[in-house]
Amino acid sequence: MTTTVIKGGTIVTADLSYKADVKIEGGAIVQIGPNLSGDTVLDAAGCYVMPGGIDPHVHLEMPFMGTYSADDFESGTRAGLSGGTTMVVDFCLPGPDQSLLEALQMWDNKTSRATADYSFHMAITGWNERVFDEMKTVVQDRGINTFKHFMAYKGALMVNDDEMFASFQRCAELGALPMVHAENGDVVASMTAKLLAEGNDGPEAHAYSRPPEVEGEATNRAIMLADMAGVPLYVVHTSCEQAHEAIRRARQKGMRVYGEPLIQHLTLDESEYFNKDWDHAARRVMSPPFRNKQHQDSLWAGLQSGSLSVVATDHCAFTSEQKRFGVGNFAKIPNGTGGLEDRMPMLWTYGVATGRLTMNEFVAVTSTNIAKILNIYPKKGAVLVGADADLAVWDPKRSKTISAKTQQSSIDYNVFEGKEVTGLPRYTLTRGYVAIEENAVKTREGHGKFVHREPFTAVNKALSTWKELVAPRKVERTGIPATGV
Amino acid sequence: MTTTVIKGGTIVTADLSYKADVKIEGGAIVQIGPNLSGDTVLDAAGCYVMPGGIDPHVHLEMPFMGTYSADDFESGTRAGLSGGTTMVVDFCLPGPDQSLLEALQMWDNKTSRATADYSFHMAITGWNERVFDEMKTVVQDRGINTFKHFMAYKGALMVNDDEMFASFQRCAELGALPMVHAENGDVVASMTAKLLAEGNDGPEAHAYSRPPEVEGEATNRAIMLADMAGVPLYVVHTSCEQAHEAIRRARQKGMRVYGEPLIQHLTLDESEYFNKDWDHAARRVMSPPFRNKQHQDSLWAGLQSGSLSVVATDHCAFTSEQKRFGVGNFAKIPNGTGGLEDRMPMLWTYGVATGRLTMNEFVAVTSTNIAKILNIYPKKGAVLVGADADLAVWDPKRSKTISAKTQQSSIDYNVFEGKEVTGLPRYTLTRGYVAIEENAVKTREGHGKFVHREPFTAVNKALSTWKELVAPRKVERTGIPATGV
Amino acid sequence: MTTTVIKGGTIVTADLSYKADVKIEGGAIVQIGPNLSGDTVLDAAGCYVMPGGIDPHVHLEMPFMGTYSADDFESGTRAGLSGGTTMVVDFCLPGPDQSLLEALQMWDNKTSRATADYSFHMAITGWNERVFDEMKTVVQDRGINTFKHFMAYKGALMVNDDEMFASFQRCAELGALPMVHAENGDVVASMTAKLLAEGNDGPEAHAYSRPPEVEGEATNRAIMLADMAGVPLYVVHTSCEQAHEAIRRARQKGMRVYGEPLIQHLTLDESEYFNKDWDHAARRVMSPPFRNKQHQDSLWAGLQSGSLSVVATDHCAFTSEQKRFGVGNFAKIPNGTGGLEDRMPMLWTYGVATGRLTMNEFVAVTSTNIAKILNIYPKKGAVLVGADADLAVWDPKRSKTISAKTQQSSIDYNVFEGKEVTGLPRYTLTRGYVAIEENAVKTREGHGKFVHREPFTAVNKALSTWKELVAPRKVERTGIPATGV
Amino acid sequence: MTTTVIKGGTIVTADLSYKADVKIEGGAIVQIGPNLSGDTVLDAAGCYVMPGGIDPHVHLEMPFMGTYSADDFESGTRAGLSGGTTMVVDFCLPGPDQSLLEALQMWDNKTSRATADYSFHMAITGWNERVFDEMKTVVQDRGINTFKHFMAYKGALMVNDDEMFASFQRCAELGALPMVHAENGDVVASMTAKLLAEGNDGPEAHAYSRPPEVEGEATNRAIMLADMAGVPLYVVHTSCEQAHEAIRRARQKGMRVYGEPLIQHLTLDESEYFNKDWDHAARRVMSPPFRNKQHQDSLWAGLQSGSLSVVATDHCAFTSEQKRFGVGNFAKIPNGTGGLEDRMPMLWTYGVATGRLTMNEFVAVTSTNIAKILNIYPKKGAVLVGADADLAVWDPKRSKTISAKTQQSSIDYNVFEGKEVTGLPRYTLTRGYVAIEENAVKTREGHGKFVHREPFTAVNKALSTWKELVAPRKVERTGIPATGV
Repeated sequence: MTTTVIKGGTIVTADLSYKADVKIEGGAIVQIGPNLSGDTVLDAAGCYVMPGGIDPHVHLEMPFMGTYSADDFESGTRAGLSGGTTMVVDFCLPGPDQSLLEALQMWDNKTSRATADYSFHMAITGWNERVFDEMKTVVQDRGINTFKHFMAYKGALMVNDDEMFASFQRCAELGALPMVHAENGDVVASMTAKLLAEGNDGPEAHAYSRPPEVEGEATNRAIMLADMAGVPLYVVHTSCEQAHEAIRRARQKGMRVYGEPLIQHLTLDESEYFNKDWDHAARRVMSPPFRNKQHQDSLWAGLQSGSLSVVATDHCAFTSEQKRFGVGNFAKIPNGTGGLEDRMPMLWTYGVATGRLTMNEFVAVTSTNIAKILNIYPKKGAVLVGADADLAVWDPKRSKTISAKTQQSSIDYNVFEGKEVTGLPRYTLTRGYVAIEENAVKTREGHGKFVHREPFTAVNKALSTWKELVAPRKVERTGIPATGV
Repeated sequence: MTTTVIKGGTIVTADLSYKADVKIEGGAIVQIGPNLSGDTVLDAAGCYVMPGGIDPHVHLEMPFMGTYSADDFESGTRAGLSGGTTMVVDFCLPGPDQSLLEALQMWDNKTSRATADYSFHMAITGWNERVFDEMKTVVQDRGINTFKHFMAYKGALMVNDDEMFASFQRCAELGALPMVHAENGDVVASMTAKLLAEGNDGPEAHAYSRPPEVEGEATNRAIMLADMAGVPLYVVHTSCEQAHEAIRRARQKGMRVYGEPLIQHLTLDESEYFNKDWDHAARRVMSPPFRNKQHQDSLWAGLQSGSLSVVATDHCAFTSEQKRFGVGNFAKIPNGTGGLEDRMPMLWTYGVATGRLTMNEFVAVTSTNIAKILNIYPKKGAVLVGADADLAVWDPKRSKTISAKTQQSSIDYNVFEGKEVTGLPRYTLTRGYVAIEENAVKTREGHGKFVHREPFTAVNKALSTWKELVAPRKVERTGIPATGV
Repeated sequence: MTTTVIKGGTIVTADLSYKADVKIEGGAIVQIGPNLSGDTVLDAAGCYVMPGGIDPHVHLEMPFMGTYSADDFESGTRAGLSGGTTMVVDFCLPGPDQSLLEALQMWDNKTSRATADYSFHMAITGWNERVFDEMKTVVQDRGINTFKHFMAYKGALMVNDDEMFASFQRCAELGALPMVHAENGDVVASMTAKLLAEGNDGPEAHAYSRPPEVEGEATNRAIMLADMAGVPLYVVHTSCEQAHEAIRRARQKGMRVYGEPLIQHLTLDESEYFNKDWDHAARRVMSPPFRNKQHQDSLWAGLQSGSLSVVATDHCAFTSEQKRFGVGNFAKIPNGTGGLEDRMPMLWTYGVATGRLTMNEFVAVTSTNIAKILNIYPKKGAVLVGADADLAVWDPKRSKTISAKTQQSSIDYNVFEGKEVTGLPRYTLTRGYVAIEENAVKTREGHGKFVHREPFTAVNKALSTWKELVAPRKVERTGIPATGV
Repeated sequence: MTTTVIKGGTIVTADLSYKADVKIEGGAIVQIGPNLSGDTVLDAAGCYVMPGGIDPHVHLEMPFMGTYSADDFESGTRAGLSGGTTMVVDFCLPGPDQSLLEALQMWDNKTSRATADYSFHMAITGWNERVFDEMKTVVQDRGINTFKHFMAYKGALMVNDDEMFASFQRCAELGALPMVHAENGDVVASMTAKLLAEGNDGPEAHAYSRPPEVEGEATNRAIMLADMAGVPLYVVHTSCEQAHEAIRRARQKGMRVYGEPLIQHLTLDESEYFNKDWDHAARRVMSPPFRNKQHQDSLWAGLQSGSLSVVATDHCAFTSEQKRFGVGNFAKIPNGTGGLEDRMPMLWTYGVATGRLTMNEFVAVTSTNIAKILNIYPKKGAVLVGADADLAVWDPKRSKTISAKTQQSSIDYNVFEGKEVTGLPRYTLTRGYVAIEENAVKTREGHGKFVHREPFTAVNKALSTWKELVAPRKVERTGIPATGV
């Protein structure tokens, strides 16, 4: 096999920054050290050699009203690679009565052209004995250790407390990790109807229909359910102080809860919805909606202190034309924005360059933490011998102005349009293959493979041990009276 | 009319302590001042003349499995008077499909022998157009401005978020106050089944089935719903730090939320359930269950700081025989304990005598605060000219040991058995009538009357004004595109 | 004696709103009820008859660099009356080595022309045996039950922790209430030097020198000292979330701590200091400085929830010419702004009219709460028979635009210039005398009298009882070894 | 050179658990992988191969009243090694007027017999220009990047806010990390005098003199000072919820604050001081004192959530005879307990075996986190090629009952006497040398070397960048008026 060497760079991981070369063979890292040589040499002078980003929250080719979100596994993974992200995790979404395995087959079918590695979270959108049984197969045979639950989207994906609690208990048994989209779906539905009835039909009403308290409540509820079920919890797209507060409060009691802010919520705010241009506002419609600066400060502080763990995107790209489904009724605007391509440069620019985050923390929240949570570390998320050579050779001096005109994503706009970012990949490697070389995009369709993930992380096991230790104990009594009446 | 004068005492209200006599005529206070004279003179030397207690949380003659809770309006109000409580508020509990007005008729029928004044909260146990309509009648014609919602008792009284949110919005329109029993009923039901399946069938499992996190979650959820509906909220029987924290957190944002600890939760703890005597433990079964000292400290501090507003009892007295319905299955133990008679002496002893509360705070949390919340102040809860002469002439030196043998309540035990209290009424007057004179009980059956309560308190109105001010505003746009696809 | 009757109004107190007339004789309220008549009749139709405001935080004729703050007891109390405030409390400020009694004599000398009642807080600006001894005289003979401590103004008024702790313990013994100006004086002094050294000499640097964390720290420290000393605490001019958080946290443990936001901090923000006009910015220089909207929201919520107790002004009016002492050195800008005249109309407009506060809460935070804290209730702060007839007949429809041109204060500007307020006194009465009748100012020089205040409030006593109950107990041991070595 | 191989174990680091052998040569790890061979083979079957523990908080041979704490660098490091700890950091304590460099010379002189590696923190016990200057030398020439500040021990080691703030600013410039012993020394001194005056002279009064609020206050104050100085902060021996809360609150704002609970505070409680045996109680006297279970729960949760970073011991061993200095006066009981030997087995038993912590978290809090904070990672705290071979080969099945009779420490008792621990080193290696082999102690005097530590961690640099970004900006004005008066 031929070898590739990344020379002259500084390796930056979640733990460490040090000068060393990296030698790659057969898609994996085979040596790290000074003065390495190989068949191909990539010049990393002035660059940081980091684990490629992992975006654990994307929706590629997601079915929607008879059509699909515009980025598929090809354009989506290509967009990711161009911004230094080398793995994505999509959500398999069965219908409420559909077999999980059948849905998984549908999702498998979408991925043949993926240019980078991927995995799936399985959504639980209903509850019955088949679901209960299939969860085991999903975990043990199909390499999926995460189950997503929607507390919103009433009448569609939403599950109620009963169903969620049953699923969480099942996750505990299987050593899997439940995830939640945390918004109170009953309230959102009711508020939506009320706003529409009052003539509030524009994109701004989307934000009005789901304020921070609604997200905070659901987050708090999911945490209690997970605690009672004795299982860790992962809260996706934590957008506001209320949800973050619930997470912090739980963690401060020793509960095992992870929060995931999105790059959009960290850097964009609700004023976008007040834009006089309907298209501008509608393109930013996602759930939860953008919040204000106070919420942004909360999220940044969470990344600094460790109360929030992962920065993701919820990349779900709809074209302006698709967004216009919702003219006259904000509830019909397809929810979602892009971000896969911009997550890492935006976070570097607004996080590392400002001093909010160290470079090591940047690696932790874009890659290493989620790799550990998903139990794929150090195959992914690491620069270690034996790890997959999913790497971003990061040039802290490269800069660009984000623009839809030059992006990889298939849609006609970019929510970060006009933002200047400094810090971009010089190279992005996916399992050793150089898919991005500065502005040259050399991705290979079909290169991406499914990443299998084992259950029973150390955290799951420790939590189960603790819960067993403090489990209810029966009081032994004699002389119990006869039943009354 | 004849007059009564309370002479030589110190008037103690929520605001003030001062020496003065009180003259009563026609059931009301007609004069306050020095050296008053009247037909009958009650010697209050060494005593505090306080507004009679109001217990806003009792269940008298409550239907249960074809029988009734043991204290009815006669024995219940008598028990109250003997401990200085001059008014109770019971809960009218319609069946899920029953007419509110029909249920109210049933409750009216129970009260003919009441010895002190009373009122009703109306429970919302289901949701439909008739309920929506009848709520207006209940408020505007029947003098009831409070609606209770059970978040627990799944399959019986429990309502779901949708129903609760609709009812809260209706309360906002009507100027009424929603109340909640805050425990997550889904989780309680699931935990109950699990515990029973594991053989945990004793009274202690009742506590295991509904730990503090379960109450905290529901409290937090109800608060969000009330905030979104733009209505104040009253949380009954706040028993733990988790629920109290949710209330504090809401109040600290300016939300209008009241919390009501019970005297039981302030002074008794979970160790009662571990008693080897099944009867002992079962007699203490109520929801929420007793907690530990840390939770007690939280509740006391809430009374001191004002984050909790009212001390009540949830008096719902079942005999030992009734409790034994639940032998072999804790879920069948009827929920409830007594307390009406002991609330004020216990709170005085553990609160005022220890220095935790001032005497004025004692009056506030036993009488005046709830009178204001229920919009019956200063008819009740005050020592003012014009107010009803519902008065406790409190002798801080009188003491007794609480015992079932000497109590007024109809049941065969007392959860405070053996507690020594110092601070008891020398006289209790209900609308001027001396119902209690030291150990002599002179209550009159049928003396008690329904207390009518008007909607739209100052707090309701202020909150509505604020919510209107910050209501969503539509963004005016031109050039909105045509609908997509 | 002649009588005055206020007819046709609605009495609004901290507790109640009800229609009644008020009859006044000899400076006090002698009757409250319907259809009263008297020699003079004041038409209160459409008005609220409220307890006159009490501003517990003013500095009149305060010595400063050889001159004095511009408003003296005449113009200051006149300004107060014109805005509905009928009593002020000033601070007697001894030099560090001065006798308290000698300083008190100097302050007494300033008050001969006061047009409304007043009292003093005594400042503790140093610590020695004479101070220790004189505190007793101040409390027991001079009717002063509050002692102020400056944690800032290093080298001038500031006391250190040792001194403050000693003084707090002395307050506990005497039944007095310690107060603190809470900013870390060491840090402020150091930051001031640093900013000046860097050329940051403008008024905005005043704000930079004392950010919220600096106030929060000192507040937290004072609370701990008070808790250890077993005495309640009053924190003046709480301006920010950090300080408020410390207060809330203490209260939530049951500690007895009061916070006092100023009307300025509730309604003005730090952007004032960035005004390009030096005079504009310098006129707003006070300590603590104005903060941002997030802090304002915190303060409003504190008034709503009861975690903050009193709205004051820290009225200390310096002319523009005096402010210019600090040209080229912000540290020399005399600290202070006006507000006495505008506190109540501003709070009504921004608080009651918006729905943030009820009218009753307005009365509580402008008058009744502080009257209770200072132990002068119900002589002041009440509309009750026997109370002083210090009353504001408040016309909720009267409005004006605040302007220095029409104000009573002696200075040449007003920090609220241009604000439109709705809600003004139609009449203000000071002990029965009608000092303000719409725009007519009829104040009488020398009418104002010193208000004597007794120690040992109910809260002081309760706290002492509790602290005694939980005081350290010696472990009794036998067989203690001999001393080592 | 000869090589050693640890065979058949599972490597457990802060990140990872995986099967591999470790090859050591020249004191460092030279290879990690399967099937390694070497001159000496250590059997690690069934064991975890972990980074040796680092105890960042010890006082060996500490001067005290003309004598010294009983464990010196020989017995102290030996005790450490026997429990799996391979490095200690001691505190160099200059007199208030002493040269830092002179003191350092004294401390260097103590270390010649150290059996494991060590480093020093430098204490700042006074402030003057020489200290300011020498701090630079200490950092840049002497390899010390941490400065300790005592907020307690008034009249001895304590510095005031001014001094501390100056030193913190100096640390910021030098890229060093300030540390604090956080207790309010003024209050402790005053309380001590008061307790003694009241006859409370026993060891329990030591605890009474410094309750949790006193520690919480100082922690909060130090955090503010560090924030204003723009430098991270390390809080030693965080013993209670109050201090932990201050740390959490700071971190939740993005501040860079580390907290260090001790194994004693995690596992022992205040009831020890109420022991009737004076010696028993006095042997447990340390500052801060032991707290109650609620505080313990807070500390454990902090380790779980990451709000606390490091578990240490404050090992400072005094003999019973030395403790008896304080008979009749608790303030003279030398402060300190042992723990070096027991930290890791106790934490494993109470933390890992119960499920509170994962094994990886165990490594993080005993070794890796502090290595990063002290900027010596991955030389220490890692199992990586190139790292020092400071390793614990941990046998999770080995157990013992802790007893003074069998311990390495020089003192005659052990505060953990009688505790059964499961989880002990089979081998402990210090730079490749097998110092402990089960019960055989083979330590070599003089083997230990000073560990040099560089300033300017990534966190220091990031924080400085952020502070520069948000630094005060001067408002540019024209037309500034002339100075007044």
